[in-house]
Amino acid sequence: MIIVMKPGSSKKELDHVIKTVEEMGLKTVLLHGTERDVIACLGDKRDIAQDFWNAVPGVEKAVPILAPYKMASREVRPTPSQIQISPEFALGGKTVGVIAGPCAVENKAQLLSIAKSVKEAGAVGFRGSAFKPRSSPYSFQGREEEGLKYLAETRDEVGLPVVTEVLSPEHVEMVANYADILQIGTRNMGNFVLLKAVGEQPKPVILKRGMSATLDEFLLAAEYILSSGNNNVILCERGIRTFENHTRFTLSLSAVPQLKKLTHLPVIVDPSHGTGKRDLVNPMSKGAVAVGADGLLIEVHMDPEKAFVDGAQTLTTDDFSTLMKELKPVAEAVGRDI
Amino acid sequence: MIIVMKPGSSKKELDHVIKTVEEMGLKTVLLHGTERDVIACLGDKRDIAQDFWNAVPGVEKAVPILAPYKMASREVRPTPSQIQISPEFALGGKTVGVIAGPCAVENKAQLLSIAKSVKEAGAVGFRGSAFKPRSSPYSFQGREEEGLKYLAETRDEVGLPVVTEVLSPEHVEMVANYADILQIGTRNMGNFVLLKAVGEQPKPVILKRGMSATLDEFLLAAEYILSSGNNNVILCERGIRTFENHTRFTLSLSAVPQLKKLTHLPVIVDPSHGTGKRDLVNPMSKGAVAVGADGLLIEVHMDPEKAFVDGAQTLTTDDFSTLMKELKPVAEAVGRDI
Amino acid sequence: MIIVMKPGSSKKELDHVIKTVEEMGLKTVLLHGTERDVIACLGDKRDIAQDFWNAVPGVEKAVPILAPYKMASREVRPTPSQIQISPEFALGGKTVGVIAGPCAVENKAQLLSIAKSVKEAGAVGFRGSAFKPRSSPYSFQGREEEGLKYLAETRDEVGLPVVTEVLSPEHVEMVANYADILQIGTRNMGNFVLLKAVGEQPKPVILKRGMSATLDEFLLAAEYILSSGNNNVILCERGIRTFENHTRFTLSLSAVPQLKKLTHLPVIVDPSHGTGKRDLVNPMSKGAVAVGADGLLIEVHMDPEKAFVDGAQTLTTDDFSTLMKELKPVAEAVGRDI
Amino acid sequence: MIIVMKPGSSKKELDHVIKTVEEMGLKTVLLHGTERDVIACLGDKRDIAQDFWNAVPGVEKAVPILAPYKMASREVRPTPSQIQISPEFALGGKTVGVIAGPCAVENKAQLLSIAKSVKEAGAVGFRGSAFKPRSSPYSFQGREEEGLKYLAETRDEVGLPVVTEVLSPEHVEMVANYADILQIGTRNMGNFVLLKAVGEQPKPVILKRGMSATLDEFLLAAEYILSSGNNNVILCERGIRTFENHTRFTLSLSAVPQLKKLTHLPVIVDPSHGTGKRDLVNPMSKGAVAVGADGLLIEVHMDPEKAFVDGAQTLTTDDFSTLMKELKPVAEAVGRDI
Repeated sequence: MIIVMKPGSSKKELDHVIKTVEEMGLKTVLLHGTERDVIACLGDKRDIAQDFWNAVPGVEKAVPILAPYKMASREVRPTPSQIQISPEFALGGKTVGVIAGPCAVENKAQLLSIAKSVKEAGAVGFRGSAFKPRSSPYSFQGREEEGLKYLAETRDEVGLPVVTEVLSPEHVEMVANYADILQIGTRNMGNFVLLKAVGEQPKPVILKRGMSATLDEFLLAAEYILSSGNNNVILCERGIRTFENHTRFTLSLSAVPQLKKLTHLPVIVDPSHGTGKRDLVNPMSKGAVAVGADGLLIEVHMDPEKAFVDGAQTLTTDDFSTLMKELKPVAEAVGRDI
Repeated sequence: MIIVMKPGSSKKELDHVIKTVEEMGLKTVLLHGTERDVIACLGDKRDIAQDFWNAVPGVEKAVPILAPYKMASREVRPTPSQIQISPEFALGGKTVGVIAGPCAVENKAQLLSIAKSVKEAGAVGFRGSAFKPRSSPYSFQGREEEGLKYLAETRDEVGLPVVTEVLSPEHVEMVANYADILQIGTRNMGNFVLLKAVGEQPKPVILKRGMSATLDEFLLAAEYILSSGNNNVILCERGIRTFENHTRFTLSLSAVPQLKKLTHLPVIVDPSHGTGKRDLVNPMSKGAVAVGADGLLIEVHMDPEKAFVDGAQTLTTDDFSTLMKELKPVAEAVGRDI
Repeated sequence: MIIVMKPGSSKKELDHVIKTVEEMGLKTVLLHGTERDVIACLGDKRDIAQDFWNAVPGVEKAVPILAPYKMASREVRPTPSQIQISPEFALGGKTVGVIAGPCAVENKAQLLSIAKSVKEAGAVGFRGSAFKPRSSPYSFQGREEEGLKYLAETRDEVGLPVVTEVLSPEHVEMVANYADILQIGTRNMGNFVLLKAVGEQPKPVILKRGMSATLDEFLLAAEYILSSGNNNVILCERGIRTFENHTRFTLSLSAVPQLKKLTHLPVIVDPSHGTGKRDLVNPMSKGAVAVGADGLLIEVHMDPEKAFVDGAQTLTTDDFSTLMKELKPVAEAVGRDI
Repeated sequence: MIIVMKPGSSKKELDHVIKTVEEMGLKTVLLHGTERDVIACLGDKRDIAQDFWNAVPGVEKAVPILAPYKMASREVRPTPSQIQISPEFALGGKTVGVIAGPCAVENKAQLLSIAKSVKEAGAVGFRGSAFKPRSSPYSFQGREEEGLKYLAETRDEVGLPVVTEVLSPEHVEMVANYADILQIGTRNMGNFVLLKAVGEQPKPVILKRGMSATLDEFLLAAEYILSSGNNNVILCERGIRTFENHTRFTLSLSAVPQLKKLTHLPVIVDPSHGTGKRDLVNPMSKGAVAVGADGLLIEVHMDPEKAFVDGAQTLTTDDFSTLMKELKPVAEAVGRDI
């Protein structure tokens, strides 16, 4: 950490800062500059709030040198983690994994029909929400436990691991009983109680990036899960909130290669929520694979117009089959397969 | 709702849209334009997802005419709501209410000392978090139930109602046992399970705006609480995430008069989190009162440098007394008192 | 256009709005809703400011139905435009065109050496700025006319058309004398005097998206050039300003397929400025091609560390050769070549 | 400047960095950390691009310690500058100065009538644009030189200094012939050729903040004018682009006190463009004065509905008189007058 003093700060203030740093167990080196004094603090203490220093008299700012997360970092684990989502498939290896399915669980027939179709097209996982976080209390809120049962039955019949969202700590056990992979949605990335709860069970977790989270905040959210004991965290870029109005969110594909540099965890992309527009899902899926994503999360429905939610961004099963065929050469072009 | 068809959409697509709208119980008026057809849909149906229409063949977009929230709207309740936060004080009336206290509960002595000081300076409520939502799992997470007890004892000794944050549905009952007002933090504005839980108990709720929430989304979050049975919702603008880097967030003061037009609920402002900088708290508090805020939420500590968290944005008790004196003429200048 | 009246607006206000619309030469259809009146306005008038209506008593909002640009739109010209940038190459066809070169013109030897190298690697154009828009007045501002001469000589010797930025209307003629393609930078997308000036000469123009421009604003800026008489406009996505801090800007790749739907103009991507980080240029270039970009604009230097400006985002000539080889299968995977 | 090396960087890379820094005339202090090496660079060199370092092998990042602007900074000039905009009034002193007038110059009668009215209400300057930067080429573009004449005649008859926008370097001389204060609009904050041109003439310049400019970028734009020889720069916050959709832009009032700390230049606020909504102009004007603005820039028209542009955000002359009366106690409440 580097502490920059204000111009004109007093000797007393300087001494106080140095004393405080040293009481924290860090070594200090004082640098007299032409306009300011700077104190370099040496030692491995990631967890001293940068903020703290801004409150200390005479201090202009504190500049951290180390990343604030540990277990998620490449420095701690230099090689990519592969996360087994089914006996057959691990995310994070050479093969790009596509997880597909409807936004919301509607009924058993719907699930079976879509699951068979996406499996045939090459999906390695099946998604569907039984608990739906909806902006409006008047919108359909999900089939809840009944929906979870449908998902589990679909897994048993079709043979794809199922991903479903969990909204509350008290539901974690129930959801983990039925599902193979738990999803934390964008609105819950900062729900730290929920992060700890999914960290205390062993099933893989897909953690969606908060729609206004920096990558540091995203990796710290992953750190909550990792430090609670669960190493099976899959990161998902799903669009950020910007001024752009041609899409529901701005899908930030540069987050993918940047995350791959910072962390060993697999990174997948959700082009359906990230754009909110069906006709952008195909090109943005290709873009995601081209920049190095380890997987995709895609909404698919037999009849998007009849989907209970998010029809606008949902592919038909036919569109999805076409997409999977078109993705294959893109994956191969960047040294992957699918 | 207005449905705009794509140029070149077919007669069959048009007929399908009209039929679908009418099956929903709405009346339609078809408008043939020079380049497009437009279908006006008449009737009171707020809850038809705009998205749905984007999935229907031939449709370019659907434009809603009504706001998506009801109970929070001025149309349903044209006069401002006043919310009683203590036997002595209601937020939303002529008097601007200032709630102050430390970011985190540290110990009993700290609370008592700050509470006495802010009460003397004119605060009408006391704030302090026993459960802290922290970006890093390695940061101080709060005193939890012990902290709640300290808060309740402080209330009993000093006579100010206490506001504290609740992070999880399973804690709602416990927190409501000790506190007078429950706070939902910015990271939980989209935690709909938690919103319903605080809506099912009667104590007032301060709902902080999500850091990337539009006003519609903010009012829909309030609607979750209102529609669960609790009318005592206080809205709090606390800064939004933008590209600006001179403050931690961008405090959007225009949200205050705009919310006052849209809703009958009281609106308060948190200039401490909204700026993250102690020396901006004073001017931004004055700005908030000048634009019409019904109250303020301010972090105060005896010794901000020794505060466990967020020292950088915390006023000393002396600074706070000065601020309260300086706020009085500003409040009076806009026809309020304090 | 659809005009939505406020609830409770008077008959007089309504009549006034209808009269005003009809005086503009539009037909009106009045729709009595359950809570509001809505007036549909029929006819082709794109240029009535939406804003105007917000100032009219009784009006809540006006909703435009038509896009505000004409000549740039697909509706006016449904097939893609191809723009000849050299006798050998047109942007906007099957072949993805890569334009590469240093950020700033330094000297003749530098240009020749880089130009030969990028041509050999497969570039179809050469870029370099003789006029540099720099945030700080103390930074290197460019070689100006001397630099333009070097560029022209390099074109003559190496045989690649040269792209260079023009900063001011008074320089348009001079720059057009030397260069083959004129570039309008992100900071000048809203410099309408400059847009008209480049529209009044015939050489192709690369128009960079303003860093906070919506796609409508971007296409309206193109419309300034088109409506001044120059049809040779190439659009360039170069990153938008968001809260993200891991890149200098957020490269919005979804803008590419969305623009391709809205306009017939070619769309290229600048991954160098869009990320500001050398190691993200390679993956983001692949992503850009995968989502359908017609070309790329890439910074290349023999020795980026010695580059006068923007070294951090500049590829070495070796990196660039590698990138071109790696882009080929990606282009082919999406039905293009390079 | 602090240079942070990558973990695992080589001795050779480290030596190369130290040598490069010392060749720039800076002293170095090497700090061996537990995970990284850090090099502190001592000396007054503001203009070394931070970017440069990111391109140097082995370097992770460079952290600047000094602000990049000089002449605009408080460090160079610790007391506030007052800028004389007329023989009677200087902006930047105790009295808050309000400049008002129509968005666009329409005709002489319009100007005279509005100017008399705003002068009577207490305005100290008159604004009106003869050159209008419009997003669409099909919108009204201004009366140009004819409009400038009307403005000058209005100044002569009514006695208020006139502010008008200049869009292009070639117009600077003409505009300065007629106007008393030149305005640089938000779209031209990064038009550095224009900034230099207005810096080479002596009349005061109102520089509007770019809609996505950080405060550093804003002050560097001011530095272009100052370093060209013109010290009379007035900064204007006019709203930034964010995801918020209830206003046209988000007026960032915290920029005002923050700028007042960083620079000696006066800071004014434009609540008309900053909100785009007439009914928010009154509260946001009060907010601006309460946070410490030195002045306001407000759009006023006899009949906003008939205004050629921006009617939606324009006050009537009656609204303006009311606002001026209501602003007086707010200014007094914060130790100013008006």
